[in-house]
Amino acid sequence: MGVYEKDSNVSYTLGTTLTLELLIKKVDKARRVYIHSKQDNNDTLNRILDICKSNNIEVVYSDKLINKLSDKENCFIVGEFEKFDCEISYNENTICLVNPSNAGNLGTIIRTCAGFNIKNLVIIEPAVDIFNPKVVRASMGAIFNVNFKYFKSFDEYKKNTNNNMYPFMLKGSTSLSKIEKKEPYTLIFGNEATGLNDSYLEVGTPIKIMHSNNIDSLNLDNAASIAVYEFTKKDF
Amino acid sequence: MGVYEKDSNVSYTLGTTLTLELLIKKVDKARRVYIHSKQDNNDTLNRILDICKSNNIEVVYSDKLINKLSDKENCFIVGEFEKFDCEISYNENTICLVNPSNAGNLGTIIRTCAGFNIKNLVIIEPAVDIFNPKVVRASMGAIFNVNFKYFKSFDEYKKNTNNNMYPFMLKGSTSLSKIEKKEPYTLIFGNEATGLNDSYLEVGTPIKIMHSNNIDSLNLDNAASIAVYEFTKKDF
Repeated sequence: MGVYEKDSNVSYTLGTTLTLELLIKKVDKARRVYIHSKQDNNDTLNRILDICKSNNIEVVYSDKLINKLSDKENCFIVGEFEKFDCEISYNENTICLVNPSNAGNLGTIIRTCAGFNIKNLVIIEPAVDIFNPKVVRASMGAIFNVNFKYFKSFDEYKKNTNNNMYPFMLKGSTSLSKIEKKEPYTLIFGNEATGLNDSYLEVGTPIKIMHSNNIDSLNLDNAASIAVYEFTKKDF
Repeated sequence: MGVYEKDSNVSYTLGTTLTLELLIKKVDKARRVYIHSKQDNNDTLNRILDICKSNNIEVVYSDKLINKLSDKENCFIVGEFEKFDCEISYNENTICLVNPSNAGNLGTIIRTCAGFNIKNLVIIEPAVDIFNPKVVRASMGAIFNVNFKYFKSFDEYKKNTNNNMYPFMLKGSTSLSKIEKKEPYTLIFGNEATGLNDSYLEVGTPIKIMHSNNIDSLNLDNAASIAVYEFTKKDF
């Protein structure tokens, strides 16, 4: 993904709409906006330029830098922003991802969280870097709406919260559609390939999303989306 | 994705588990299995070799060909299979994707369909090629469990079926969680970027998955997964 480095203190929004989201939701973190000569002179561009001007954000016109930053065709605006820390609420509804490894999955789960008003995202290491531009892009900018925090272990997170714990496991005893949902809750999901290990059977109420045996499991972001939908649908 | 070509009459399963799925579910379409020298001599390999032997499927030991076929590291077994046509049932529950463009989304939707026993998948062109190895891989082999058929237009599909139609649209008037579900049904989803156009408001009962205005829409595969879960959960 272009020149992005995990250890750098900046990341990038690759695309026009995504960059506008950055400027609307986290303008204090925006450092620079790159514009390609092929970018149309349209309303979105004018909005971006206005926000940059009002906030003293540098605008750089450079096809070369855009091509370096993005490996995607048709990416004509890139935003550069400072990485940031968030505080999460330990007594509100939360999604906890244990060792997520896929950037696209993490991004779409963030989008789903934002869509269903789950504002807290806990990530247990080792895990994919949430500031990887692929995650930012897959989140469609929802990364700027959700509070996230990394922990070295699940126990390190667990000791801070009294939330009702619902680990999603193929060995779960209770069906998602029949579960009694107690708020505030933390919905816990394992790694794409390995799921949650058996120790999570002792953590709260293990849940299974019942499905046929035509498949071993659902894709992580689909499982998380189904779970979040079911837990939040009374609110919508 | 390696040397795959849309116009070719063969496609590939990139990976050991995926190739085993091919051999279990569509052995009559398997033409050849490529094995890399780094492949461990384990139970899965022995199962693959047994099936190849019983079915006279050629086994080719070649690191060079595997590297050519797969752009993924750690891919040590590749299956080559003939593309195939399916027949769908016009009076059973169906998912209809209008102009899907993303290979990963199509693959994970197929996986979800297989998981919730939706056996018919209708795809309206233009659309991503279902035999693209990225789709096959994202489906985790579920492509061999689902019947799919491409149509030039929605009308061409529609004239063959009396299914109850449920287009999923941001302009939908009824909430998914409150809808009365009449079988057999066809759940219809639009393109990732553009959704379904307004003409679908006249097709059956337009449904909306209610969410906050923090996001414009859900990711396509997440929306489809939530919908399929809600429509089928009484069966699980």
